[in-house]
Amino acid sequence: MLDGQWTTDWEACMAPRTRLMKRSVIRELLKFTEMPDVISFAGGLPAPEVFPVREFREACAFVLDEMPQRALQYSSTEGFLPLRRWLADKVGKYGVPAVPENILLTNGSQQALDLLGKVFIGPGDTVLTEAPTYLGALQAWTPYEPRFITVPLDDDGMQVDKTAELLKRETAKFIYVLPNFHNPAGTTLSQERRNQLVTLAAKHNLFIVEDDPYGELRFEGEDIPPIIALHKENTIYLGTFSKTLAPGIRLGWIIAPEIVMDKLVQAKQGADLHTGTFVQMVAYDIASRGILKQHVVTIRQVYRERRDVMLQTMAEHFPPQVTWTRPQGGLFLWVRCPEGVDTEQMLAKAVEQRVAYVPGFAFYPDGRGRNAMRLNFSCMAPSQIREGIERLARVLKNECAAAQAAKTA
Amino acid sequence: MLDGQWTTDWEACMAPRTRLMKRSVIRELLKFTEMPDVISFAGGLPAPEVFPVREFREACAFVLDEMPQRALQYSSTEGFLPLRRWLADKVGKYGVPAVPENILLTNGSQQALDLLGKVFIGPGDTVLTEAPTYLGALQAWTPYEPRFITVPLDDDGMQVDKTAELLKRETAKFIYVLPNFHNPAGTTLSQERRNQLVTLAAKHNLFIVEDDPYGELRFEGEDIPPIIALHKENTIYLGTFSKTLAPGIRLGWIIAPEIVMDKLVQAKQGADLHTGTFVQMVAYDIASRGILKQHVVTIRQVYRERRDVMLQTMAEHFPPQVTWTRPQGGLFLWVRCPEGVDTEQMLAKAVEQRVAYVPGFAFYPDGRGRNAMRLNFSCMAPSQIREGIERLARVLKNECAAAQAAKTA
Repeated sequence: MLDGQWTTDWEACMAPRTRLMKRSVIRELLKFTEMPDVISFAGGLPAPEVFPVREFREACAFVLDEMPQRALQYSSTEGFLPLRRWLADKVGKYGVPAVPENILLTNGSQQALDLLGKVFIGPGDTVLTEAPTYLGALQAWTPYEPRFITVPLDDDGMQVDKTAELLKRETAKFIYVLPNFHNPAGTTLSQERRNQLVTLAAKHNLFIVEDDPYGELRFEGEDIPPIIALHKENTIYLGTFSKTLAPGIRLGWIIAPEIVMDKLVQAKQGADLHTGTFVQMVAYDIASRGILKQHVVTIRQVYRERRDVMLQTMAEHFPPQVTWTRPQGGLFLWVRCPEGVDTEQMLAKAVEQRVAYVPGFAFYPDGRGRNAMRLNFSCMAPSQIREGIERLARVLKNECAAAQAAKTA
Repeated sequence: MLDGQWTTDWEACMAPRTRLMKRSVIRELLKFTEMPDVISFAGGLPAPEVFPVREFREACAFVLDEMPQRALQYSSTEGFLPLRRWLADKVGKYGVPAVPENILLTNGSQQALDLLGKVFIGPGDTVLTEAPTYLGALQAWTPYEPRFITVPLDDDGMQVDKTAELLKRETAKFIYVLPNFHNPAGTTLSQERRNQLVTLAAKHNLFIVEDDPYGELRFEGEDIPPIIALHKENTIYLGTFSKTLAPGIRLGWIIAPEIVMDKLVQAKQGADLHTGTFVQMVAYDIASRGILKQHVVTIRQVYRERRDVMLQTMAEHFPPQVTWTRPQGGLFLWVRCPEGVDTEQMLAKAVEQRVAYVPGFAFYPDGRGRNAMRLNFSCMAPSQIREGIERLARVLKNECAAAQAAKTA
């Protein structure tokens, strides 16, 4: 009725934090990666062909037969109590003495990151992350206006000696670390470094946010106990069903001391009241019957084979100046190209060759990583991985040669 | 390992906004209302006995038979496109010319409120609300540090003439209004006032946030077109499946201009990546087969009967100094007691009589409303409503007499 007379200046109405928000690079890549003939190593998707569909169907029917009024109704902010009990029991086996009162169910781990940002990050607070780090954490926290400081990774994960150096001249509020099969780097923090890290955190009165979406997806080697098992009173741990069961149900969890839980629950109430009742009950049914445990064995086998195919094809075809990590589990590996190769600019050429990846700069708060890239090996069939890596190798050879020529010119 | 040596001072680590967070009053009431012999009018729950369980079960089976890999996988932040198309078509019938690009699926309407707070409310920004207003909005927005200014309601909803008066001496960023079957007041904004409100908003360059969870639950009278139909370019509209289908799936939506959508999508990405794929596909199946439309007819009949029983029992038993609203739809009505009755203090006495409600102060940003209360009529059987209102009437008679005695003393 009044349209045409006057229109809100929406941008002028937005809060200062909103100017800091950006679309995810990965999201912007979707327009390439959704082209049907592009082999995409850009996503972070679980393999959909191994989703436990029959078990899901049975669990939905069971929950709707047995507890329909409860499953479809509002429920508590903390989450479905039997599922919290099951999680407490499960993490107890890894040496984490949690009780249900320490556990909050979230809409995937991404919501856990957002709630932590809301509760802890005030404008100008310093957050210490690995570099590279999970871009979803950068995206969740940026609107709360922190300053990021970073420590590089090597093949054993975060370089704790460099963290110690950094903390001689900087203060921080907390350390964010992905200890197992790092996204994007594929590295695992060694036992020795975990010990060093908790000692360092204690020395500087820092708490640790341990993000562990992939810990159960180990293909080889021995499990290393989580950081929270070393440092329970000072660590907040994030877990998820997205990689072990299915991401489409959006189900993750936080383990935190009760005093933190109290505020996380208040933040969660304001954010969305509670996580879906029905999906929590379905996940509980699948988990408590032991189906999830069996299913994780299947996923490990499938992903291990895919990782092996990717590593072998890279070894055969990538130019010698290019290096990469060799993950012992998870979904990703990290490729480093020689200086002078710009993986963001190279992406257009890769897409011309019908292959895609995520450029490395996306995983740095400060735009470094321009000669690196993340490759996902979980969601393509082995034959496609082989073909895609061969395509990428051709692009890389040209780019490395051009970078070399520019350097010597 | 290090426990006992040092423990994080968690409270000192929290952001300034976290000190503003509080547990919901309604949540704190749960400990009373979960006692099995207490008749609770305190919740805002849909009647679980009319949930369309069989249809839900069929929809889950259909989605998992036909599109399992898609249903369990990550999906777009905006939401499941067929559901956004269905919603665009549906609101089009109410005069809202929306396209799917204007629609974002959220984890219930509560998340829509949080995302709007994140995108629009900077510290110190002024938000104009009704008084009383939805306490979930206060809870979602308080951490973003706004200042609230309020306008009272009468039987025709927000008093727009008083809004005009207020805006002569105050500026605000936006107006938040629940036009249909208000929570907590049960009132509906008249057509004339809707027209006046959009004119007033235009005059002061304010946008409107129209929260409409109950609009489809009209028991009598004529539907009034939503505010967004009058003022599309300047209104953000919130809808939900929680009251028409089931709250346990956490599914709501925002309709907003595309420039706002762009930022809401970025905020949603940081907050939880996307709303559950599976529940969106299940809801779409139920909605697109026309089952939802039939189901809303059932709900209206059930709730209408319950409202009638509540109103009639109140007329028979409440003391004459007590007044209440007569909602034409929705889930709630609002009771005003004489000055001197404190509904927060009275609650303990009511619970002694095995009946509960929400004290009015919870719905005011400034703690007023101390002599009012909200009653829910949707989730109790008629016989329980009758018994509960009789119990509450006995408590009220005592309180009114005591207040009168104190006044004359």
